[in-house]
Amino acid sequence: MSHERRILLAHGNGGRFMRELIDQVFARHLANPLLDTRTDAVTLALPEPEIVFTTDGFTVQPLEFPGGDIGSLAVHGTVNDLAVAGATPLYLALNAFIEEGFEIERLDRIVASLARAAQQAGVRVVAGDTKVVPRGEGGGIYFATTGVGRRTRPLQLGIDRIMPGDRILVSGPIGDHGIAVLLARGDFGLSGDVRSDAASVLPLAQALLALPGLRFMRDPTRGGLATVAHEIAQSTGLDAWLDQASIPVRDAIRAACEMLGYDPLYLASEGRVVAVIAPEDADAALAAWRALPGGTEAALIGEVVAGTARGVLRTELRGERMVNALDNVPLPRMC
Amino acid sequence: MSHERRILLAHGNGGRFMRELIDQVFARHLANPLLDTRTDAVTLALPEPEIVFTTDGFTVQPLEFPGGDIGSLAVHGTVNDLAVAGATPLYLALNAFIEEGFEIERLDRIVASLARAAQQAGVRVVAGDTKVVPRGEGGGIYFATTGVGRRTRPLQLGIDRIMPGDRILVSGPIGDHGIAVLLARGDFGLSGDVRSDAASVLPLAQALLALPGLRFMRDPTRGGLATVAHEIAQSTGLDAWLDQASIPVRDAIRAACEMLGYDPLYLASEGRVVAVIAPEDADAALAAWRALPGGTEAALIGEVVAGTARGVLRTELRGERMVNALDNVPLPRMC
Repeated sequence: MSHERRILLAHGNGGRFMRELIDQVFARHLANPLLDTRTDAVTLALPEPEIVFTTDGFTVQPLEFPGGDIGSLAVHGTVNDLAVAGATPLYLALNAFIEEGFEIERLDRIVASLARAAQQAGVRVVAGDTKVVPRGEGGGIYFATTGVGRRTRPLQLGIDRIMPGDRILVSGPIGDHGIAVLLARGDFGLSGDVRSDAASVLPLAQALLALPGLRFMRDPTRGGLATVAHEIAQSTGLDAWLDQASIPVRDAIRAACEMLGYDPLYLASEGRVVAVIAPEDADAALAAWRALPGGTEAALIGEVVAGTARGVLRTELRGERMVNALDNVPLPRMC
Repeated sequence: MSHERRILLAHGNGGRFMRELIDQVFARHLANPLLDTRTDAVTLALPEPEIVFTTDGFTVQPLEFPGGDIGSLAVHGTVNDLAVAGATPLYLALNAFIEEGFEIERLDRIVASLARAAQQAGVRVVAGDTKVVPRGEGGGIYFATTGVGRRTRPLQLGIDRIMPGDRILVSGPIGDHGIAVLLARGDFGLSGDVRSDAASVLPLAQALLALPGLRFMRDPTRGGLATVAHEIAQSTGLDAWLDQASIPVRDAIRAACEMLGYDPLYLASEGRVVAVIAPEDADAALAAWRALPGGTEAALIGEVVAGTARGVLRTELRGERMVNALDNVPLPRMC
């Protein structure tokens, strides 16, 4: 591969070039005892009964942005889906769709970042597949990751466990990821030092698992906090109230949203948790989060009440605004 | 969604359009008790210890071809990787990358086909994610599927178990899938009634599991039979001999290969198994396969012998030809 610094269609043909690509980029960064890139299926060491399974696709543009890249995001996205389900992430499968002509040096950097994120989250990439698509297709690179995790004890977490009176918490400021990606795209002639919040939320999720009043957790990625509130309302038939003044949003994010016409409630975060919890455990949850590096700005932001399946925002001017699902709004690709 | 017959970027934004797409296309076809499209991670019912995990990506063009489509292929490819690992496929995760402007009717047809293939293979799609990419990217649709299977008894199958004297078998004619896809593309002004062999190989794989001499199975997909022989040689340090006269290739496939300049040894099959088995069990394996609908044309095609890590083809004229890995040959996308 030394003379070929760009992806060729031949890197996808199942032959020598593909083998070299896998050995020299993927296997080199992702090496672990279970990963055997010459086998199609791997046996997992999973002694316990509650096995949790999730998958996510990643198409973010640009592929690299302040605070992360599509590689680290592909780990964090799936690790976080397992974490908010109360599971400890163990294994990942990785699919890469790479565009012909993609710079191998850049691929190497992105896979290295992916490997670092996996190591930090304590998860091992044990299965993978690579496809190469013709130049002009594929947006550079897409990833899909599928995660397997384990619950060490049976856990009753779910949107259907939410009850009137439950509190809504968020582990930190929202929208950093969305704005970091938008600004990195450079379309707006704006710049700033906004960094994505993309990170593993595993410590944040685990910090709440012992609280008996914990009902539900979700990471507010695509569609943002508004979409989580809307889903809570739709699924429970209750009203989900958010208190705008309490929702942490950094000044830089607020300013960028005002200039660009975005609502921070709909912007993706990739390192935050929204939790719904019984009122008697809300303070303990906030305290647990605030004791963690990723949760110092955690806040109580709302409440679930008897109602008619509405998401409602109580504005800073004490007005009320419906929180709906996104409609035909082609938000840029943030995840 | 009734007024929108094409995929919009908004179908990927996490909001109402995406929810409708998931409900009306994916959930409708894939409904099963474990699939909850409103949760990010699902708990698997997996009591037994040996859990097997695999993943594969699918970018075939054209998306529909005689004998299958990218939907059924996305099931068969991953089911077959589990089957040849000696596992019973149980669960699939599905990732879809859909291009803006894709016809929803066509998506519906493809997802219905995927659902049918999953049902026939006894596997349930329990997790999924959908991303929409801008028009011009994405080749219509890509899928990635990740499979979880279970071995009911511990099994020692692996390329490293192959020994000198072992026989190489194939469950049926090779190359049908590759040629069916090539002809369906219409680039060559050729047509014919060649159908893809794409199918679940689970019955074929399971038919051999009780044979103590079974060493290794592989489905000869991307890179074809030649690539399997090459990998056996490279991994074991032995020579893998293939006997050209014994390798089943349909006349139509042979003719198309001659006209198009392809070698059937390198063409993908998507419903065949290559097995390596101790000589004393080879006859029993052939008999077991030939008793199955998918194995009537099974054949003994070669042998592994002490050597120097070479794949060798004994030609019909009693010559010898090295069987190498594909080099810089951009074979069209067949899987």
